[in-house]
Amino acid sequence: MDMENKAAESGQIEGRNEVIEAFRSGKTIERVYILDGSHDGKLDTIRREAKKAGIRADFVDRKRLDSMSLTGNHQGVIAKAASYGYAEVDDILERASEKGEAPFIFLLDGIEDPHNLGAMIRTADLAGAHGVIIPRDRAVGLTATVARASAGAINYVPVAKVTNLSRTMEDLKKRGMWFAGADMDGALMYDCDLTGPMGLVIGAEGTGLSRLVKEKCDHVVRIPTSGNIDSLNASVACGVLAFEIVRQRTMR
Amino acid sequence: MDMENKAAESGQIEGRNEVIEAFRSGKTIERVYILDGSHDGKLDTIRREAKKAGIRADFVDRKRLDSMSLTGNHQGVIAKAASYGYAEVDDILERASEKGEAPFIFLLDGIEDPHNLGAMIRTADLAGAHGVIIPRDRAVGLTATVARASAGAINYVPVAKVTNLSRTMEDLKKRGMWFAGADMDGALMYDCDLTGPMGLVIGAEGTGLSRLVKEKCDHVVRIPTSGNIDSLNASVACGVLAFEIVRQRTMR
Repeated sequence: MDMENKAAESGQIEGRNEVIEAFRSGKTIERVYILDGSHDGKLDTIRREAKKAGIRADFVDRKRLDSMSLTGNHQGVIAKAASYGYAEVDDILERASEKGEAPFIFLLDGIEDPHNLGAMIRTADLAGAHGVIIPRDRAVGLTATVARASAGAINYVPVAKVTNLSRTMEDLKKRGMWFAGADMDGALMYDCDLTGPMGLVIGAEGTGLSRLVKEKCDHVVRIPTSGNIDSLNASVACGVLAFEIVRQRTMR
Repeated sequence: MDMENKAAESGQIEGRNEVIEAFRSGKTIERVYILDGSHDGKLDTIRREAKKAGIRADFVDRKRLDSMSLTGNHQGVIAKAASYGYAEVDDILERASEKGEAPFIFLLDGIEDPHNLGAMIRTADLAGAHGVIIPRDRAVGLTATVARASAGAINYVPVAKVTNLSRTMEDLKKRGMWFAGADMDGALMYDCDLTGPMGLVIGAEGTGLSRLVKEKCDHVVRIPTSGNIDSLNASVACGVLAFEIVRQRTMR
C-alpha cells in the first residue's frame, strides 16, 4: 500500500484541496491541523469550514505537521476524518461466544440507502445482535451518513463485509448457524422457531432477497402484514423481525 | 383565498419559472400541459425535465390552457403536482367503524424527519391501522419526500393534522380510546394489554414523548432493548410496537 492509500485508510486527509473537498463531501472530520502563521485563501476556507462544522482547528508548527504527515505532502494542513473499520465474521462469532450467547447476526443483502443501513446497525445494538454482515458489492458501506444514522451504534456493533453473502451463509451453517430470511411468501414469524444460533437475513429495498441467498435460508418468515401496499421499509421490517427473535429467545 | 393561493392549494402550478422551480425542488409532478407549437428555452427546459422525470407532457391549444388556468397567467404551461390532503380525526374513526374493527391509530408527536414520517405511514397501512394523527406545529407535514418514503401508503392511510395533540387525545379518551406511549421508562410491551381501541403514541426523534402527551397515555410501554445506545430509530420503534399490537389483537 502506498503512502497516499495508507493516509486514506487511516482517515487522515492531507493537502488543501483534499481537505476542502472532504468538508464539502460531508465527511465527518474530527480535527484539523493547520500550519501556524500561514495564510492564504484556501487555508482561510478550511478555517471557515471547520468553524461551520464546529470542529477544533489546531495551529501547529511545521515540525509537528511533518511528523504527522503520511504522504510527505501536507501543504500546511492535515485533517483527521472519522474512520469506521470493518470487522471479520470471526470477530462477530467471538463476541457471541465471549458473552456466552448463541450467535445472533443480521445479514443485509444489498441495502442501498445509508439511512436504512444506519437504522439497522442501531437496531442490531438494541436487539442484542452480535454483529452485521454486508456484501462488498451493490450495497452501501460504512459512510459518514450511515454512521450518523446509526446514532453511535457503529462504535459498538462489528460490521463485516464479505465478497459472497450466500457462500458466507454456507460456511456459517457448517458452524451451526441457522438463517431466517424475510419474505412476504414465508411462514408467519410466530410459527417459526427463531431461537438458537440465528442469522436474520433482510433483502434489498425494492427487490428483496436474492434467489441464491433465499435458497440458503432455513426459514423464510413473514411479518403479519395486511393493507394495500407491498412491504414495510427495510429497516422497519428488520426491527420487527429482530424483536420477534428477541421475544422468542427471552420467552424460553 | 386569491387565485394564486387557490392554484397552490390544488397542486396546480402555472408559469414557466414556477414549473421549472417545481421540478427542481423535487415536487412530485404528475402531468404537464404545454401550449402546442410554442417554443423557447424555458419550455424546452420543462420538456426535458418532464422527460427526465418520466412524466407525460400534453401539448394543448390556448383555449384549453386558458380554461384550466386558475391564475389567468399560465405563460403557456401548467403542471399538476401531487397534492396530499389531510383527513379529519372523525374520518379515521369512521374508517375503523366501517370495517367493524376497534380503532387503531398512530399518533406521532413531533416527527421532523420526512423519511421517518413516510416509513410510519407505510407501517400504518401494513399493520392495519386506520389512520395517523400528527400535530400542526414543530413537525413535518405531508411533503413530496414523505409521500415517496411512504411507498404509496399515503394514498390509503388518512392523516389528520391537529392543533393540540394532548387535547385530541383527551377527546378520543372520552370516546373510548386508550393510548400507549413509547418510552424507555415504560412497562415491557408484552406485559401491557394493547388490545381494544388503541392509539400508539410515538415521540419525536431525540426528545421522545412530550410531558403533556405522556401524561395522557394509559400505558407507557417499552421495547425489550439491550445494548449500548439510547433508543431505536423512531420509525423502527413505531414498527416494533405496531406489530406487538397486531400480535396481541390476533392472538385473542
